[in-house]
Amino acid sequence: MLMNKAINDLRKTLTPENVLCELEERYAYAFDASNSFEKTCLPDVVVFAETIEQVQNVIKIADKYSIPVICRGAGTNTVGSCIAEHGGIILNFSKMNKILEINRENMTARVQPGVVLKDLKNQVEQLGLYYPPDPSNLAVSTIGGSIAQNSAGARSFKYGTTKDYVLDLLVVTANGELLRTGSNTIKNAAGYNLGSLFTGSEGTLGIVVEATLKLIPKPQCTKVIMAYFDSLSDAAKSVSAIIDRQILPATIDFMDKNALQTVEQFNPAGLLTDKEAALIIEIDGPKNSTDEQVITNLLRQSGASAIQYSSTEKEAEKIWAARRSSMAACAKLKPDVTTDDVIVPRENLPELVNGIHEICKKYNLTVCLIGHVGDGSVHPQIPIDFNNKEEYKNYKLAKSEIYNLTVGLGGTISGEHGIGRTKREHLPKVVSPLALNYMREIKKVFDPKNILNPYKIF
Amino acid sequence: MLMNKAINDLRKTLTPENVLCELEERYAYAFDASNSFEKTCLPDVVVFAETIEQVQNVIKIADKYSIPVICRGAGTNTVGSCIAEHGGIILNFSKMNKILEINRENMTARVQPGVVLKDLKNQVEQLGLYYPPDPSNLAVSTIGGSIAQNSAGARSFKYGTTKDYVLDLLVVTANGELLRTGSNTIKNAAGYNLGSLFTGSEGTLGIVVEATLKLIPKPQCTKVIMAYFDSLSDAAKSVSAIIDRQILPATIDFMDKNALQTVEQFNPAGLLTDKEAALIIEIDGPKNSTDEQVITNLLRQSGASAIQYSSTEKEAEKIWAARRSSMAACAKLKPDVTTDDVIVPRENLPELVNGIHEICKKYNLTVCLIGHVGDGSVHPQIPIDFNNKEEYKNYKLAKSEIYNLTVGLGGTISGEHGIGRTKREHLPKVVSPLALNYMREIKKVFDPKNILNPYKIF
Repeated sequence: MLMNKAINDLRKTLTPENVLCELEERYAYAFDASNSFEKTCLPDVVVFAETIEQVQNVIKIADKYSIPVICRGAGTNTVGSCIAEHGGIILNFSKMNKILEINRENMTARVQPGVVLKDLKNQVEQLGLYYPPDPSNLAVSTIGGSIAQNSAGARSFKYGTTKDYVLDLLVVTANGELLRTGSNTIKNAAGYNLGSLFTGSEGTLGIVVEATLKLIPKPQCTKVIMAYFDSLSDAAKSVSAIIDRQILPATIDFMDKNALQTVEQFNPAGLLTDKEAALIIEIDGPKNSTDEQVITNLLRQSGASAIQYSSTEKEAEKIWAARRSSMAACAKLKPDVTTDDVIVPRENLPELVNGIHEICKKYNLTVCLIGHVGDGSVHPQIPIDFNNKEEYKNYKLAKSEIYNLTVGLGGTISGEHGIGRTKREHLPKVVSPLALNYMREIKKVFDPKNILNPYKIF
Repeated sequence: MLMNKAINDLRKTLTPENVLCELEERYAYAFDASNSFEKTCLPDVVVFAETIEQVQNVIKIADKYSIPVICRGAGTNTVGSCIAEHGGIILNFSKMNKILEINRENMTARVQPGVVLKDLKNQVEQLGLYYPPDPSNLAVSTIGGSIAQNSAGARSFKYGTTKDYVLDLLVVTANGELLRTGSNTIKNAAGYNLGSLFTGSEGTLGIVVEATLKLIPKPQCTKVIMAYFDSLSDAAKSVSAIIDRQILPATIDFMDKNALQTVEQFNPAGLLTDKEAALIIEIDGPKNSTDEQVITNLLRQSGASAIQYSSTEKEAEKIWAARRSSMAACAKLKPDVTTDDVIVPRENLPELVNGIHEICKKYNLTVCLIGHVGDGSVHPQIPIDFNNKEEYKNYKLAKSEIYNLTVGLGGTISGEHGIGRTKREHLPKVVSPLALNYMREIKKVFDPKNILNPYKIF
């Protein structure tokens, strides 16, 4: 009843094609990449905003009727953060996808939330600039989602995460007001750091409608080295050796044997499938650097049994395409696939990787491990049939054990994907009751009626 | 009366030498580097904590009697943030100055708040690691102050500010509880980003008693180029030319003619004093980089009339020592000196610099300009006699005009020093009433009795 009134109001503020109410339309927005099919979460209505004012009007309507609003970019979220768990309005930003300004002199970009990361990256790179954060799904995922989840990716080893590039945000608050969080400057120490608070808050504190991002000069030169090892500990040893030589590669990613085999089976890229582990090391920086030669020697000394080089940007892209396709490849092994995101201090990574293999073996699950070994970050990808109840039960048990292992190794249950809906019950493993209480109080300050992506995170 | 009771309680929890009550003792803590002498702000008592538990006990006493607590490291704050404006307890961290752990494998350091930045930098560099933030006062200022103010420095052009290196904080809350904000991992997307909220909050939300900081490998090679120009616009042109060539120096600092002359007069370092402006460009990274040669050519093409090179670390340090001594040098021109901290989008920097010169001329004030030109950041240093009422009045007028000019150029009134007490009245120029209101509400969440550095920022 209330919802019907709200939908009527929405129809008054938005054009008809921007308000979707049919069941089949809504069903298309009942899922995201978290593949958590326990319950179909149908939104009551899906709306597309095209202007900031329209976003404000949508939120004012949601506020008036106390209806949940869940923002959505490309729906690539892996933790169910853009799912309308309690019904309500899905606010879709795919039509607010303009790059408003790229300022070469200031090295900043001003963008709408629906801008696809790859589009931004391509455009700034054409101007000799660079936006480093590179989540694996960058070809489809949006900057709004990146900010909501504080996305990172392989290059965060050298370059940090999304929050390190957010200079200023325009945010629509829970009552429809427009809030500016910072300033259009490289540094800002005037008042509390609201921008960093919104970054990673998964749409629960406010709705980002515009972002000013910091850019850097595009590295003059980028090379990718793929090194294969017969043991994970040799791979880990080589990472330490590289850092000991005071080299900071842009990435030190890894794939385990299962990941290598699965990717090669479905997206042949010439990966060596008989190796236990591969490192993907991207070095960037000035021309004439001898780092590539130094790293090659260190890799050999650490026991690398094969090394592949990219000599062109195209070859490098081929290696990255293979690495990024691992979730899609895993999805071909079973009807569904889950991905996860655990992180430990780097020295504990070999133990984490071995432990995850043991846990999955115990529960009879296949697991492909990829991750950002430089950061101590692992993404276990588990192909699964959700209709197989036994398998699903095992998956849930394995997931919980993997989190316990991670916490025991001094780590946390999300490095770059967020908590959303699928990790909510596990959050108390890594955040104390005291900290959770402060987070809840902050939530109340910004969203007293609990309409912004309610019940996510907590 | 209440204060006497509190002091008695403090004496029970701390050893006698850690509770200072004598007038002359308290007077020594009535000032900081802000030199804002309008009113002597005597604390009622100065205490030194040596353990986290002692900090908790001090805060519990302050909470019990509703007494302000103001944290202090080295007292280098330039905005009056560590001044007991309304009396209360100065909580001094100079005895909590231990580097608890430097973990080479994880590239992290765990430190107490009283650690002097230079000590941390020296120790990590001996292990081939690097902590980039480098405020000019790093030889005395502490990591606790850096976190409180989100300090930056010259190298933030390439490396970002303190907040980009804070992984995890232990914070004593306003009621004496111990709060952990994050995790000991390079990335963390589990819950709200409390660590970034505390960073830059100037001790108004909680008291940092331990920090885990991200380190990076120490650059293999560092060179400093000092280039002199006959006009500021030539200097600005050369900065654009460097970035256009996809080079990201660690620093692009500048000094104007007054700064060059004043420094050379009091700390002779061989600076050329007949030039309008000098750039201090530090390049770091792999050996064998040709960036130095490329930059030299670009500087010449942009009109640099003289270039000095550092060929050793010692020579580089000499240039930096000169640059960092400018405030001390200015202090010799008059009984007092003030420094400031304004920042604009880089393209507007020449206009800001010229405008500041005009404003100071109009009010008959000498000004030395130094700054981080890569970031668009300027520190006007104004020698002044605070006892000269006319001059002081002029200074206040000039300051306000400089802020208005900054805001008109799209900038903000603090890039890296904070707001504290001396800029509080100007904060509404850059932070909207809506944002201020949210900041106040956040303050209430963490400090409902308003005892943590009360009335600072707002």
